Amino acid sequence: MKKILVLNGPNLNLLGRREPEIYGRTTLGEIEAALTALARELGVEVRFFQANGEAELLAALHEAMDWADGVLLNPAAYTHYSLALRDALAALTIPVVEVHLTNIFAREGFRARSVTASVARGFVAGFGPQSYLLGLRGLVALLG
Amino acid sequence: MKKILVLNGPNLNLLGRREPEIYGRTTLGEIEAALTALARELGVEVRFFQANGEAELLAALHEAMDWADGVLLNPAAYTHYSLALRDALAALTIPVVEVHLTNIFAREGFRARSVTASVARGFVAGFGPQSYLLGLRGLVALLG
Amino acid sequence: MKKILVLNGPNLNLLGRREPEIYGRTTLGEIEAALTALARELGVEVRFFQANGEAELLAALHEAMDWADGVLLNPAAYTHYSLALRDALAALTIPVVEVHLTNIFAREGFRARSVTASVARGFVAGFGPQSYLLGLRGLVALLG
Amino acid sequence: MKKILVLNGPNLNLLGRREPEIYGRTTLGEIEAALTALARELGVEVRFFQANGEAELLAALHEAMDWADGVLLNPAAYTHYSLALRDALAALTIPVVEVHLTNIFAREGFRARSVTASVARGFVAGFGPQSYLLGLRGLVALLG
Amino acid sequence: MKKILVLNGPNLNLLGRREPEIYGRTTLGEIEAALTALARELGVEVRFFQANGEAELLAALHEAMDWADGVLLNPAAYTHYSLALRDALAALTIPVVEVHLTNIFAREGFRARSVTASVARGFVAGFGPQSYLLGLRGLVALLG
Amino acid sequence: MKKILVLNGPNLNLLGRREPEIYGRTTLGEIEAALTALARELGVEVRFFQANGEAELLAALHEAMDWADGVLLNPAAYTHYSLALRDALAALTIPVVEVHLTNIFAREGFRARSVTASVARGFVAGFGPQSYLLGLRGLVALLG
Amino acid sequence: MKKILVLNGPNLNLLGRREPEIYGRTTLGEIEAALTALARELGVEVRFFQANGEAELLAALHEAMDWADGVLLNPAAYTHYSLALRDALAALTIPVVEVHLTNIFAREGFRARSVTASVARGFVAGFGPQSYLLGLRGLVALLG
Amino acid sequence: MKKILVLNGPNLNLLGRREPEIYGRTTLGEIEAALTALARELGVEVRFFQANGEAELLAALHEAMDWADGVLLNPAAYTHYSLALRDALAALTIPVVEVHLTNIFAREGFRARSVTASVARGFVAGFGPQSYLLGLRGLVALLG
Amino acid sequence: MKKILVLNGPNLNLLGRREPEIYGRTTLGEIEAALTALARELGVEVRFFQANGEAELLAALHEAMDWADGVLLNPAAYTHYSLALRDALAALTIPVVEVHLTNIFAREGFRARSVTASVARGFVAGFGPQSYLLGLRGLVALLG
Amino acid sequence: MKKILVLNGPNLNLLGRREPEIYGRTTLGEIEAALTALARELGVEVRFFQANGEAELLAALHEAMDWADGVLLNPAAYTHYSLALRDALAALTIPVVEVHLTNIFAREGFRARSVTASVARGFVAGFGPQSYLLGLRGLVALLG
Amino acid sequence: MKKILVLNGPNLNLLGRREPEIYGRTTLGEIEAALTALARELGVEVRFFQANGEAELLAALHEAMDWADGVLLNPAAYTHYSLALRDALAALTIPVVEVHLTNIFAREGFRARSVTASVARGFVAGFGPQSYLLGLRGLVALLG
Amino acid sequence: MKKILVLNGPNLNLLGRREPEIYGRTTLGEIEAALTALARELGVEVRFFQANGEAELLAALHEAMDWADGVLLNPAAYTHYSLALRDALAALTIPVVEVHLTNIFAREGFRARSVTASVARGFVAGFGPQSYLLGLRGLVALLG
Repeated sequence: MKKILVLNGPNLNLLGRREPEIYGRTTLGEIEAALTALARELGVEVRFFQANGEAELLAALHEAMDWADGVLLNPAAYTHYSLALRDALAALTIPVVEVHLTNIFAREGFRARSVTASVARGFVAGFGPQSYLLGLRGLVALLG
Repeated sequence: MKKILVLNGPNLNLLGRREPEIYGRTTLGEIEAALTALARELGVEVRFFQANGEAELLAALHEAMDWADGVLLNPAAYTHYSLALRDALAALTIPVVEVHLTNIFAREGFRARSVTASVARGFVAGFGPQSYLLGLRGLVALLG
Repeated sequence: MKKILVLNGPNLNLLGRREPEIYGRTTLGEIEAALTALARELGVEVRFFQANGEAELLAALHEAMDWADGVLLNPAAYTHYSLALRDALAALTIPVVEVHLTNIFAREGFRARSVTASVARGFVAGFGPQSYLLGLRGLVALLG
Repeated sequence: MKKILVLNGPNLNLLGRREPEIYGRTTLGEIEAALTALARELGVEVRFFQANGEAELLAALHEAMDWADGVLLNPAAYTHYSLALRDALAALTIPVVEVHLTNIFAREGFRARSVTASVARGFVAGFGPQSYLLGLRGLVALLG
Repeated sequence: MKKILVLNGPNLNLLGRREPEIYGRTTLGEIEAALTALARELGVEVRFFQANGEAELLAALHEAMDWADGVLLNPAAYTHYSLALRDALAALTIPVVEVHLTNIFAREGFRARSVTASVARGFVAGFGPQSYLLGLRGLVALLG
Repeated sequence: MKKILVLNGPNLNLLGRREPEIYGRTTLGEIEAALTALARELGVEVRFFQANGEAELLAALHEAMDWADGVLLNPAAYTHYSLALRDALAALTIPVVEVHLTNIFAREGFRARSVTASVARGFVAGFGPQSYLLGLRGLVALLG
Repeated sequence: MKKILVLNGPNLNLLGRREPEIYGRTTLGEIEAALTALARELGVEVRFFQANGEAELLAALHEAMDWADGVLLNPAAYTHYSLALRDALAALTIPVVEVHLTNIFAREGFRARSVTASVARGFVAGFGPQSYLLGLRGLVALLG
Repeated sequence: MKKILVLNGPNLNLLGRREPEIYGRTTLGEIEAALTALARELGVEVRFFQANGEAELLAALHEAMDWADGVLLNPAAYTHYSLALRDALAALTIPVVEVHLTNIFAREGFRARSVTASVARGFVAGFGPQSYLLGLRGLVALLG
Repeated sequence: MKKILVLNGPNLNLLGRREPEIYGRTTLGEIEAALTALARELGVEVRFFQANGEAELLAALHEAMDWADGVLLNPAAYTHYSLALRDALAALTIPVVEVHLTNIFAREGFRARSVTASVARGFVAGFGPQSYLLGLRGLVALLG
Repeated sequence: MKKILVLNGPNLNLLGRREPEIYGRTTLGEIEAALTALARELGVEVRFFQANGEAELLAALHEAMDWADGVLLNPAAYTHYSLALRDALAALTIPVVEVHLTNIFAREGFRARSVTASVARGFVAGFGPQSYLLGLRGLVALLG
Repeated sequence: MKKILVLNGPNLNLLGRREPEIYGRTTLGEIEAALTALARELGVEVRFFQANGEAELLAALHEAMDWADGVLLNPAAYTHYSLALRDALAALTIPVVEVHLTNIFAREGFRARSVTASVARGFVAGFGPQSYLLGLRGLVALLG
Repeated sequence: MKKILVLNGPNLNLLGRREPEIYGRTTLGEIEAALTALARELGVEVRFFQANGEAELLAALHEAMDWADGVLLNPAAYTHYSLALRDALAALTIPVVEVHLTNIFAREGFRARSVTASVARGFVAGFGPQSYLLGLRGLVALLG
């Protein structure tokens, strides 16, 4: 059974509470529950990790080199400047799918640039929590 | 039953034949067939249109104001400069989902800018033909 | 009697229905009626054409070389990128007046640049449908 | 009866004498006479002021807050950099129409940027002295 | 016998009449006649098409995939922004030569950028109608 | 007793009346009264001047070279372009503190650049009328 | 009693020892002591935290959502690029005041840009350790 | 006898006292005395004016249209942004020579751009007070 | 008989040996032989010069003012920065044709800018050694 | 005996396994062994630390202030944006040498900018693991 | 007696013959004769050198380190890009005056940037051959 | 025995005498002597050449194609703009190491860009004369 790391970046632990008019009221726990259910349906296993620091996110990606078949990633604010994250993704030989809750192209100008997107395979944005579910489906298709 | 316009922009009629090392060998007809099947599963109706000119794409969007509940759009090259297309999308009050076969962020620099994305609700890129299927799922979720 | 081509670009056929909070509720037909009335008052003839594609707009301008004494033009979204339209205007030896319903300088950044304005003689923006009437008066003055 | 301030910026006192191949041979006095005549026809009152300094222009705008219903403004060179003028215009709650004798978009690059236009309601350029008359008509329409 | 599509973009139907001080007085028909004569001398066949719209130009290129051995193209104003045209050229597997009547590097700044040149094989500019003849010779050499 | 010039730039005479949703309803007179009270508490003397023109502001700064121990300055719109003001500040050998009512970094892009800040010693922004009081405290501390 | 988080970013633990010709010889402990004294005078409570990593700073801000009424923040080098910090500040609904020891506008060019300032309410820079005290006063005023 | 206006811009009244390590210790009066002496030697008449505001400088230039044969100008800080001054210079039909005490190209970046230089005939910088004398010689040569 | 200078810039003496996968295996001598043959056919005389330094190329152009009727030039790397070469070309009153072996628009970004092209009459690129032959034909046509 | 901190940034723990076609197959452990051997030869002591987070790297540099005589640093991805690291280096009064395995100037554009290089003394790039050895030699020379 | 090197850059040997409508009809020999006469009057010695290549100009400057007291330089096209020339000037400890025949700020955009001006002491432009004479006077004044 | 060309660019013949506070007091001859000694130790042969012109440097590189196994290059000012030098280096199939005496990243902005670095293999800067020795070691390692 394919194993997938679902990785969430800074401030996403606040989901549901953080600027709900932008990010909605669904919590990260609820999103992870929905992902677990969909994973079962799609016949894959998902493991979750969230961290606010680059060091912890890098460590998780480094470890994933030993067990994961794919990565579903919401880099949050690191999307726009963490070249360390980008390098860690480039080091992976498994497919990465980048997801965003909001349409980052319809917000502040600085959000329209993703330094990680060019080392991802797929990209999904703007569907709220559904972005994760679509991203998981897409990742499974890429793995298939 | 919700009705969805699936709109494809310039050169996409060549899919399967055009730079297959980039765009794959699946034809637009095959993608449309897969979308029809998924639409049936999701309980929505899809109607297809492809055109190489802005005028034809705009006319299709204008007409869709009278019948469609959502738009699934691959603007192809127009992604990067057709403000006329952008204005037509902004005129719509129904949700629009923008899809791309390839990860436009991992190609030539000029492809990384989408003038239409900021008036779309959702954005999917990089999954090959699966981008359309994920986009349709996402659009149906937005409509739900 | 001087003859004037009134040319409208993409999406303007939707006037009255398209983003009315920005563009108002007056239709293009109503604007054309007001222009016809003013033209009679000013002793000139006006002929109307609207198209969503560059090809059709260019054809109208090319034909106008044989009959028109002036052009009143709202290039809409093409204002910002259609160098083909610009070249067609430059090919004309009769005066061109560019009009806009809204004040394009008080909107999104990309609207503040007009590639056609530098080959027009006069420019009017921000008065809603009155922009057309003022533009016609100005064009007649330039012709006088 | 609506009262309108007609405000002219730096060097416009030289009209008729200053670079006549660009600005024409009509003097500011002649333009003001034509505006007075048109104002009578339109049933509004116009009051004139010209100054070469920002301080004087700001004072005139500050005073206008107590009596004027609209402003017809040719900021001349201040168009391109006077944020003080812009702030004074933004402080007004009455409509402002910006006019220019020449088509500023067809001249040197630095003239194509107006820092005041985004706080104006209407904009007219390129018709020579007629720009003022069209601007007055447009302003009266906005006031109507 | 090698077959070559000679494709001309927007406003080129006006050649001989359009800004003759820049583009000269030779008509497109006369250029095509000269190309026909040279083609005969070089032992190739030429077919001509001119259109003002991207849609028509794309269609001509798409059809050429089935019959042509090379393309001689003057994209006119589309040179500077039509990524749709660029993508269509990239889809071709036959050589493309881009030609311009004028030296686009000695004119307005926006003309110095060609979005199509990077997917062409050869480039000729500045020789007036001779640009087409040189381009045809060059294309035949590339085909040889 | 240390003597301080409190200098206010263009449009600040309108405080309380000018865009109150941005600048609040406190008048400049009320701010000056509060500064006088605080000055007494801190054991310094304050003198006030406001002008809309660069010439008057420069004259005030030039005179201050003969009597003042420090300057508390709100350059208003001149913040963003008056290099003449900047040069006058650079000519001073006494400390200058720049204050702004609003957080200029959270408004329009052009407000985020201050040409005077680099020749000031301290900078306070975003506290409404309190910005002046904090600025005075800071200036006194720098003088101490 | 209002409670305030005083948060210090990377390298500020070195204060007094780090480039003293720029940052002075006062230690962070001394600044915190002065803040405690002023807080007592102003009738508020202050709690201190310093960290070199984004993860730790974000955690402190996340926790502050449960207890603090305001934040006094010196983001140090993160001022210029930590969008993660910016997002955490935006998630807060309590006022934030950004402070800097030095006048960041009078130093290297890269220091003149603050990505956090636009989500702060107040901003104080250039007064050395007094910047913190002024910032605390300003924050208390905003809370009042 | 040719008559020349010697015009000095903002803060130059402070010469000798203002940042003497940059601008030297010679006063404007001393420079004017030296210019008077040289003018006598060269057989021309010089008249002096200094002002800190654009309005006064423009008025002096406007009046000079009636009597002067040339202008020797140090625009000081206005060099870098006063388009009003530029327009006034462009309105003149007599030669203008721009002078600077310092080499503006070897100082801060913003000083390297002169908006007035392109409408001047000659330009002298970097010789201290001698710049004025050389400029006068050059102007007389241009007039000869 | 018309006389033409064929001038080649830096590193072109290495042709055939230098990066043959880019520049091909034809030597400069072989190109010159082909040019000689074509010149004979076209009834013109060609003289060859190649140099690696600007000084030598300028001297050749200066001398050509006394004998040549046209110049066929491959500036090689100087294309992109030698304003000295540009000035020398501008000093000529005879037509210049610029040629390049490769399509400089399809290579590194810095190669897409030619500082010499705007002072040339014709421009040919991308045909390998044929670029020279086409350029010679074009030059002869311009001379005819 | 001089003591040197050898500090490695994010993802370098993956050396030998991470993109070996770019970074080679030598592990960080092997590099450290080679450095230890060379240090012995040069008569200095080396201590090693690697971390993926800025916080850990900063802590190591802060501690080094108490014991180290020099720093040999590969900032990896932090090279391009970590101003926190830059500030920590600037706080040091001992020499720093920056090393890179690859020639960062011959890779993606974003790698060509180092925010840390300007506070380093020496810089070595492009020699693979030898970069460390050369950097150590250079550092010892600077210390000598 | 002070000795001065008068150094002229590329294409200036063509003076009088090169684009006379821009550069005038005076030859370099005539300018040198006028400089010799003025030098005698001013009591200095001038030595002349002109070269088209950087190498020759650098050699002249290197030699001048042994004998010259000042340099009068017209770098011509090298003004805009020769950092080698700039470095050679920076190596000198004697004053350098840069002169230009034309007002380089009123010509093509690329001419407005001088890479050498910031290492010169004085700068004169726009007076035709008089620029040299004024420059010599200024240089002598700097030496005095 | 491997043979290495040590090539030095413009103004480096002045080493020891040119701006010694930046470049030190070691002469080029002394550096070459140290390189000769190290070369003997490393078992390679070094040959030296210095020139101030591009032509001479290119000739040396062209000749080196016939005998050298590697190049050690200090391009000096040409580092920043000589694309001719870059092309010559690209033509080589042997490794090139670029060295600089100073840390070019900690000096003027224009020095931070190297047009030659991307066609070099290794890069060393900032160690003074030791940069050459480290570069030679690195080059020998690359050759090994």
